[in-house]
This record gives sequence, structure tokens and C-alpha cells, in this order.
Amino acid sequence: MKEDNRLGEAFKKTKYQVGGHGERDIQTLKEVLNDYDSQQESDIYGKGKIIEDFQSKMAEYLGKEKAVFFPSGTMAQQIALRIWCDKKGLKKVGYHPLCHLEIHEEDGLKELHHIDPILLADKNRLIQLEDVVGVKEDIACLLLELPQREIGGQLPDYQTLESISAYCREKGIKLHLDGARLFEILPYYKKSAAEICSLFDSVYVSFYKGIGGIAGAILAGDKDFTEESKVWKRRHGGDLISLYPYIISSDYYFNKRIHKMEQYYEEAKELAVLFNKCSYVSTKPVEPVSNMFHVHFDLPKEKLESILATIYETTGIGLTSYLREISKEACYYEVSIGDRFANIPKKELTMVFQLLNELISGIQ
Amino acid sequence: MKEDNRLGEAFKKTKYQVGGHGERDIQTLKEVLNDYDSQQESDIYGKGKIIEDFQSKMAEYLGKEKAVFFPSGTMAQQIALRIWCDKKGLKKVGYHPLCHLEIHEEDGLKELHHIDPILLADKNRLIQLEDVVGVKEDIACLLLELPQREIGGQLPDYQTLESISAYCREKGIKLHLDGARLFEILPYYKKSAAEICSLFDSVYVSFYKGIGGIAGAILAGDKDFTEESKVWKRRHGGDLISLYPYIISSDYYFNKRIHKMEQYYEEAKELAVLFNKCSYVSTKPVEPVSNMFHVHFDLPKEKLESILATIYETTGIGLTSYLREISKEACYYEVSIGDRFANIPKKELTMVFQLLNELISGIQ
Repeated sequence: MKEDNRLGEAFKKTKYQVGGHGERDIQTLKEVLNDYDSQQESDIYGKGKIIEDFQSKMAEYLGKEKAVFFPSGTMAQQIALRIWCDKKGLKKVGYHPLCHLEIHEEDGLKELHHIDPILLADKNRLIQLEDVVGVKEDIACLLLELPQREIGGQLPDYQTLESISAYCREKGIKLHLDGARLFEILPYYKKSAAEICSLFDSVYVSFYKGIGGIAGAILAGDKDFTEESKVWKRRHGGDLISLYPYIISSDYYFNKRIHKMEQYYEEAKELAVLFNKCSYVSTKPVEPVSNMFHVHFDLPKEKLESILATIYETTGIGLTSYLREISKEACYYEVSIGDRFANIPKKELTMVFQLLNELISGIQ
Repeated sequence: MKEDNRLGEAFKKTKYQVGGHGERDIQTLKEVLNDYDSQQESDIYGKGKIIEDFQSKMAEYLGKEKAVFFPSGTMAQQIALRIWCDKKGLKKVGYHPLCHLEIHEEDGLKELHHIDPILLADKNRLIQLEDVVGVKEDIACLLLELPQREIGGQLPDYQTLESISAYCREKGIKLHLDGARLFEILPYYKKSAAEICSLFDSVYVSFYKGIGGIAGAILAGDKDFTEESKVWKRRHGGDLISLYPYIISSDYYFNKRIHKMEQYYEEAKELAVLFNKCSYVSTKPVEPVSNMFHVHFDLPKEKLESILATIYETTGIGLTSYLREISKEACYYEVSIGDRFANIPKKELTMVFQLLNELISGIQ
């Protein structure tokens, strides 16, 4: 994520920032430790009260038999797909062209597990039932990411999920949920995590997106699956002697924020409306379905950087620290609403968008 | 590590324990954080001051061009061997039969990297130059573990190391150091870490053995090697968004204990003398070459457990929480000297060994 100097610097100096929970600094960990008894014993290689209690809690929350704590989702998800492939004796899986495993993991799935992905749907839209039915080759497992982050955090309707799940069960295809942002979509679907997870054979959730922990992931499923995942966790080098810094922070921030997902979702919709009123600006999706969305500008990146920096310097409110170029005439960035949004005075936020609209109109 | 109930319980209740630095509890992390500014920014995916400063510090200490922080040694070492194998286009490595990769990693090296190990030497002794010269097949890389933990922490003489290193360079075999306990052997060799590491192409060190951190490892080598290791770190799922809880604790306890390795080594020798004076007890090695050694008993495990529990209850000093059975008539355990040893009153420690000798003699 390359930052323009002026934009990044101006963003850092703002009093209020629109996205996220706060700075990623050591205070995040200090806050957690204040709550804990110093004598609390460490977990040791996956055993002990700290890890077992949290795993049980998450298994129950997700409605799965068992859950295993992992240092990262990258590790957890490769392992989930590997287990399902081995079970079927077929090293082929289906997922979206912009799946995390395809674009952010240096091809770990292929290089370490020799699993071939079949890319479903076009990269600019969601996977539909027809895409799954239309797959030409056998696959051991289908991965669905909810919401589909790289296209702004979009979601299929719930009936589509149910029909894909039913189809996969009928065909003996295991269904895995990339639920990096599962907590964030519960208000939109008006479902519990367990209800959504019941459609899937295995589930991964993350604790440093909407939850705002330091790092860490949970992989959940039935006991055979999770027991095998522990063996692979050791093979990957993820069975650390102690994972408690991540576990206790995951637990702490889960408790602190799980009930705020509805608020973040409502705030995301409110913010998207403000963007969509501006010329040459649109959000994807137009109405967010979680705490996240992408903001697209039909404007050259350099010009917009200069406009945004001016806005930050004038209003003290920062929208983003970076922009990504799509073409010479278009750019975008990603918003994830967290605790920070509620602190911004509404009147001043309105000013930001008035100014944005004025300055954009001025250059056209 | 299965604990007998009485032995484990009696050990927990002792006032003094002979091995280790202290309890593995959350205080270990709290102590570190007291030192740190709350506003200190987190590392983000391998970038940022916290991780870069520590990597530079360790590269310099180990005398290597670059160093990379890893969540675990399991991950770091598989990756090191993979890089050397890929470089040579040969998926064969040599190591000791009791190498960590062979017995503690669920065959990750084979299952994830498809690398075949050639086992050198007999499992009860160290690898010598002749073992390396005598290898029948070509290997891309040789791994040496210093000290060889599973045989009590033994070391070859320094000339053997130099001759193996020279031979490997001549034959184009990369030499990798499993230096999980490298810091602990510097007093015996009377060498700097950089001097020893200069014999190796790549080096792994751990921060939760003698150093007493929470978890974490460093992999060091030349820049091409470490840059490639970062790609594999991401593939393994080890490129966490934030590793700082492990980095700051590694740094803190490195600074706190690196100068105490000589003390631990002297104390280990002192303790081994006490054991070797007892009937049916011997240490391996007879004279320790680091802070660690194994204590062997020519006695049935159950009888010894009862004796040890009695000693703990009588003296308030705990030697070990477990014993491992070798045969019906023999068992052993591992000692690693840390901060705790210095706190034990010498007079009471002498009593422990008088009692041990008496009770053992009583059952024979």
C-alpha cells in the first residue's frame, strides 16, 4: 500500500479518522493485559485453559462441534482446503478469482499443498449457483468469502447461499466459509453466526478486522476435521509454544465489539450516502451490506490526492491515507467502519463532503 | 509430556524449582510491556520499526547480512531447507536422526515440502566429519543442531565444526545451523555467535529457550536467502499482520539474559556433579557443555517418582515435574538451567542430593 507523501502525512495529522477502531499500537495489547491476572498460566502447544476456553466459546458461537485457534487465516484456510482435498483424494477446489488464497498468499496453496484452484464467476461479481453448477471439473471443496472483500464487500442473497449449500451437499462437495468478516455481515442477513455456519462444513473467522484484535483466527468444524487441522498446524509451524497474546486479545475485543456490528453497518450506510451525493464519486456496493465498502472516483489519482489533503488540512477529518489507481482516470480506496466513526462531529463531517463536492466540481 | 499425579502435584507445591526461569504465565508479557511506550506503532506484515530494528540487531549479532523474524523455528527451518533445496534443484537434506524436523514436526518437511532427509550418524551420538563424508547420496543442505538436544545437549569439538563447514563448502553443500540453543553454547566454545555462524550459510535461533521469551525465532543469512524466506513465510501463513508481542518480548529477554549464559553454564556443571555423585544416577553429558543436560536413572520410573515426590515434600525443592521411561528399569528427564537456580539456598540443595542418594540406596 504505497502512500502519497502529502496525502499520508496530511491524514496522520487529522484529529478524526473515518475508518477503523484506532491506531495499531502497543496500547491495543496493554489494554487487554490490564484485565488479566498475572498468574494466569500460558497455553502450551495448543493445551491449557486460555486456548481451550476460547476455542470452546467460539465453537459454540459458530455452532460447530470444535474450533482451533490459528495464528493466521492464511494458515487456517490452506489447511482446511487441504483436509477436504485429501479426504476426497482430489486436489481441486473452487473459489472466486479475487479469493485471498489466489491473490494475497504468494501461491501457498499451490506451492505447499499442490492444490489447483478453479476460478468461479467473473472477478467483478459474486459467485452464483449457476457458476457452481456450471463447473466443468470435479472439485473437492468450494470456498465462499462472505462478504467478497475485493469487490467492496458484496454479499449474495441468503437464498443463493442456501441453494449453493444444498447443491454442494448433494454433490459431495465440501463447502468452506472464508468468514474473515463474518461478524460484520450478521446484521444484514439478520442471522446468527451459527445459522450461517450451518450451511458450511468448515469455517474460518478473523479477529483483527471488525473485532480489532492484534492477529489470529479460528477454524471450526466437526471434531475429525479440527483434530486433523491441528496436525497441519504443527506442520505449518503454527503450533507455537504460546499463542496467548493473540488469544487473549481476540477474546477481549470480541467481547468489546461483537455487539457493535449493527452500529458499524448503519454508519457504513450513512457514510456511503454522503459519498454517493458527490459528483464523480460512487460506492461499491451502493448500499453497503456490512461495515465495509469501496469508494470509487472517476478522477485521476494525483488530482484527488491533492483535493483530499486539502480537505484534511481544512477540516481535521481524514477519509483515507491512500488511493489505489485503477486507470489514469479512476482510483479507489477501501473503508471499514469501526469505533472511530462515532466520534466524528456530524456537522464537521457534512462539511467534508460539501468541500469534496466543491473541489471535485472545480477541477472538472 | 505426561505427568505422574503425585510427582507433578508435589513439584507444583515446591518453594524452589531447579530448572527454568520461572512460571510461563502472563506476567512474562506484562513485564515487557511496562517498558514500552503505548504509542509505539505495531509492525504491519513484516514492516515497521519494531520488527526492522530487531531484525537488524540480530543480523549484526549473528554476523549475517540480514535476519527475518518468524513466529516459530519449525516454520523458519523448513523454509531454510526448502530454499537451499530449490537453489540446487535437489530435494535431499542431511540431518541427525533426532533432529527436530524428524521427530517433532509431524513430518512437515516431507508433507509440505517433499524433501527427503538422509539421517546421519547413530541416534545416540553426534554427527562427525566422517558421517558427512560418508553420505552415499548427494544432498543440497546439511543441518547441524548445536547443541544436539535429544542426546542431552552434546557438542562436537570446534575443529569438527570447522572441518564439516570446510567440507560442505568444498562440495557445494549448504550448511544450516539449528541454533535453537546457540546463545547457551557460546561460553563453552568461547566464541562469539558471529564466529560460530560464519561457519554456516543460514542460521536459526530461538527466543524462548535460554532467553525465556514467549515464542519466536530469527532466521539469518545473506539477503537473497532472507528475501526468499519472506515469500515462504507468507506461504506458510507466518507473515502475520502483527508479530510484535513476540518481537518485543524476544528483545526484552535477550537484553535481560544474554549476558547470563556463562552463569547458567557454570550452574549446570555444578548441578551435574551433584547428580553424578548419587548411585544409579548419571548425567548426559557427564560434564554439560551448555545450560542443559539429561539426568538418567537406572531405576524404574514409578519407584523414582515416589522418591522424588518425597524429596520435594521434605525439602521444598523440585527437581523435575516429569520422568520419561526408557525401559522398565530406566528413566530420564531434561534440565535447562535458568534464573531460578541461583535462588536456591546451597545448603538445602545439598540436602536434596543426600536424601536422593539415601532413598535410592534404600530401594536397591
